[in-house]
Amino acid sequence: MTEEVRGNLEVEDRGAVLVARIDGGPLGLFGNDIAEQLDTLVDRADGDPAIQAVVFTGTHPDRFVSHAEVRWLQEGGATVPSVGVRGASALAHTARGVNRAGGLKTAFGRTPLWPAVQLERVHQTFLKMNRSGVVFVAALNGSALGLGAEFSWANDLRVMAEGDYVIGQPEVLLGIMPGGGGSQRLPRLVGNHKALLAILSGEPFTPAQALEIGAVDDVVAPDQVLDRAIELAEHLGSRPKTSRAAIKRSVYFGGSASLEEGLHIERSEFLATALSDIGQELMLDYMANTEAAGELPLYQPGVFEEVLQAGTTRGAGATSQEIRR
Amino acid sequence: MTEEVRGNLEVEDRGAVLVARIDGGPLGLFGNDIAEQLDTLVDRADGDPAIQAVVFTGTHPDRFVSHAEVRWLQEGGATVPSVGVRGASALAHTARGVNRAGGLKTAFGRTPLWPAVQLERVHQTFLKMNRSGVVFVAALNGSALGLGAEFSWANDLRVMAEGDYVIGQPEVLLGIMPGGGGSQRLPRLVGNHKALLAILSGEPFTPAQALEIGAVDDVVAPDQVLDRAIELAEHLGSRPKTSRAAIKRSVYFGGSASLEEGLHIERSEFLATALSDIGQELMLDYMANTEAAGELPLYQPGVFEEVLQAGTTRGAGATSQEIRR
Amino acid sequence: MTEEVRGNLEVEDRGAVLVARIDGGPLGLFGNDIAEQLDTLVDRADGDPAIQAVVFTGTHPDRFVSHAEVRWLQEGGATVPSVGVRGASALAHTARGVNRAGGLKTAFGRTPLWPAVQLERVHQTFLKMNRSGVVFVAALNGSALGLGAEFSWANDLRVMAEGDYVIGQPEVLLGIMPGGGGSQRLPRLVGNHKALLAILSGEPFTPAQALEIGAVDDVVAPDQVLDRAIELAEHLGSRPKTSRAAIKRSVYFGGSASLEEGLHIERSEFLATALSDIGQELMLDYMANTEAAGELPLYQPGVFEEVLQAGTTRGAGATSQEIRR
Repeated sequence: MTEEVRGNLEVEDRGAVLVARIDGGPLGLFGNDIAEQLDTLVDRADGDPAIQAVVFTGTHPDRFVSHAEVRWLQEGGATVPSVGVRGASALAHTARGVNRAGGLKTAFGRTPLWPAVQLERVHQTFLKMNRSGVVFVAALNGSALGLGAEFSWANDLRVMAEGDYVIGQPEVLLGIMPGGGGSQRLPRLVGNHKALLAILSGEPFTPAQALEIGAVDDVVAPDQVLDRAIELAEHLGSRPKTSRAAIKRSVYFGGSASLEEGLHIERSEFLATALSDIGQELMLDYMANTEAAGELPLYQPGVFEEVLQAGTTRGAGATSQEIRR
Repeated sequence: MTEEVRGNLEVEDRGAVLVARIDGGPLGLFGNDIAEQLDTLVDRADGDPAIQAVVFTGTHPDRFVSHAEVRWLQEGGATVPSVGVRGASALAHTARGVNRAGGLKTAFGRTPLWPAVQLERVHQTFLKMNRSGVVFVAALNGSALGLGAEFSWANDLRVMAEGDYVIGQPEVLLGIMPGGGGSQRLPRLVGNHKALLAILSGEPFTPAQALEIGAVDDVVAPDQVLDRAIELAEHLGSRPKTSRAAIKRSVYFGGSASLEEGLHIERSEFLATALSDIGQELMLDYMANTEAAGELPLYQPGVFEEVLQAGTTRGAGATSQEIRR
Repeated sequence: MTEEVRGNLEVEDRGAVLVARIDGGPLGLFGNDIAEQLDTLVDRADGDPAIQAVVFTGTHPDRFVSHAEVRWLQEGGATVPSVGVRGASALAHTARGVNRAGGLKTAFGRTPLWPAVQLERVHQTFLKMNRSGVVFVAALNGSALGLGAEFSWANDLRVMAEGDYVIGQPEVLLGIMPGGGGSQRLPRLVGNHKALLAILSGEPFTPAQALEIGAVDDVVAPDQVLDRAIELAEHLGSRPKTSRAAIKRSVYFGGSASLEEGLHIERSEFLATALSDIGQELMLDYMANTEAAGELPLYQPGVFEEVLQAGTTRGAGATSQEIRR
């Protein structure tokens, strides 16, 4: 394990939904190889209008992602003098600047700052997932601790296998704390207090506990995890991608801002969707169908159910109410 | 429906509580007429010390508010070139400036910017509801989608009729997203993740589902909705209006700010109530009654229940404990 | 009660855990004497590496803290002209400046501004509790209203006695509002809407209601409250103090900031723990034990349970898996 692990992300193309299998070696670790391939995959899925969703699962028989490669985290600290929170804050800022400037490895490869730069990149990748119209689903075929849990929280949905598995943030037990967003996304997912106690104690959740508090969205038999995740991905994936992107940005970023700032974020995102080609097309179609039927499509018997299945109101309820009844 | 709908807000004066009936025409739509009358009503209720609460209900037999007039939203986009989020953000800023400057219709009536200006005004009205000491209660006699749901979230309490009704945000299905605060107030009401999934899928809540997650406060038989809403309005309406205003501002705005900023908002609001005439009067009264009885009024047997009924501690527990027992 | 109450905080040293008994006189009030002694105690516990936790309980037979000395709050208002929110905000700012500048009593003792300065100091003490690696537990032997409830919310955990007791914020009934953080910490603990309704109505929670919504963490028989609180304090107190401090700051402050600001706070705190002596020691130990056993310690049978008991991964799972089985 102390050797450099060659992790791999195997991507299977299934049309609108990609399935990405995380192979973190025999110990199932998340290291820099996986981080780099994940970043590339997120960019590809975000930029390709034909890709609606990405489902992640693990190749290890009992684990989604065990946790981060510990050497990765440890080396970041070992070669830098102990600097305290103020110094670490400056370091985090510098790392952010380095990533923005590009040209990473040429400048920082194998220097003491390199692991901090890599950590910052993982944060940027997770934030890109939150900003994207792609639906990301974690198909938790087994346990996920530390960075494995944090990667799960950065997805939009989580389906977990029932069984003797756990998900959570044990970092306190190693004298550190979550560093991949766990102390921020878990509170926003399950509430500040439940997250605080879980992270302070280091005790992970069982699948049933995770479901109970909303840390995962569904728990199914292990052999149904991937199918269920794909089903959810296809369901949300049938909605317009531009709308999903606007909604995700409004809720993830506006929802954790002050109310007035959040409302401003919403207004900007809303106006962009109202001005979009698909927004204009679907609103005009809805108005025409209302006129044809003499009733709002979403209030005609059975139409809302059809629309939820189809993913848009296109053509819905175009016949008159008399005919439908 | 594609004709300009002449909506109307019928206001019934019942002393401390006003009942406002939303008449959005045969299709139950929320358009600019209702928006303007709502703004006037909110200003009146806020400014009149005798008005403690406003209860809203719909005149349509099965609907509170169907949703927004779609033409209102669509026209805002159709006449403006597609501008992306950056341009839309600038547009939202401009619209805010126009509203602040007043003189709306003279400058922008029937120009392409007009619908964006109207949207911004709806936001300002909803924010005034959040800042006001008036208790606003939505008596949901039926369904509420889109702007109808968003108007409900802007109230302080929601009572919903049991039956085949729905409440929620279906905008994604029309290629747009919530634009009246739904992506901000629903997350703050039921949690970020539940709101995200509901808005991404467009699937509305049944009354039972809405109650379960806290999106509405009570579900009763349709013919009891208005009475129950008035009962809740009168209960909270018996508390001092200045205190209610300070509390609403602290929780709605401070509660979604950073902890330290929120605490600063609280301190300012608290000091204002502590310096107020009614605050001084009630604190001095409480101290006198403590001295007379030899015990704190709120800890005397039965007194807290009486105070909760009366709405203030005025005169509570003034007799000695021996006498009360 | 209108006499100046001489409150006292009796501190019992039990090694890593201190037990502090709040004696607010016969009426169980929280006044400035207790506020000053609390501030001193928090500084001592935070600065002493041997102190891991502080448990607070009340000496009154039925109450943790009745509420604040009302005269304390009232006098702050009586001598200052009614200034409105804008003036109160300026006053709060001035009070903050005075506290930062030190030299309190010399400059402001017995001036009209003095109570506002004292209030600001209570806020600073509560914030120090949130920033500290010390685990603070409220052992609620009875009721806690107003400032008593606010002090409870400023702790990390709350254990409450079952019985005819209440906890909550009745300030609205006295024409004021919570002024010790209640309108900010209760929303972050139980959700904005539940907190808003509780504070607007002034109705307190029973122990069962408080447990149901997460306002307290456990409800036990009155004679077990202190023992249960100490047990929880010792459990979390076995984790490294530097990690706990970093986690508390990230969740309390980052968790209520915008997502991106929160992530930056986390990164700074994380890097500081990764660079710390104990973080480096435990990560190197974990890596060595992984190599010795051929498996990650946290994934070896039974090891996670041992680690949760011990408080760190030190020495965990060092033997090979064959030997363990």
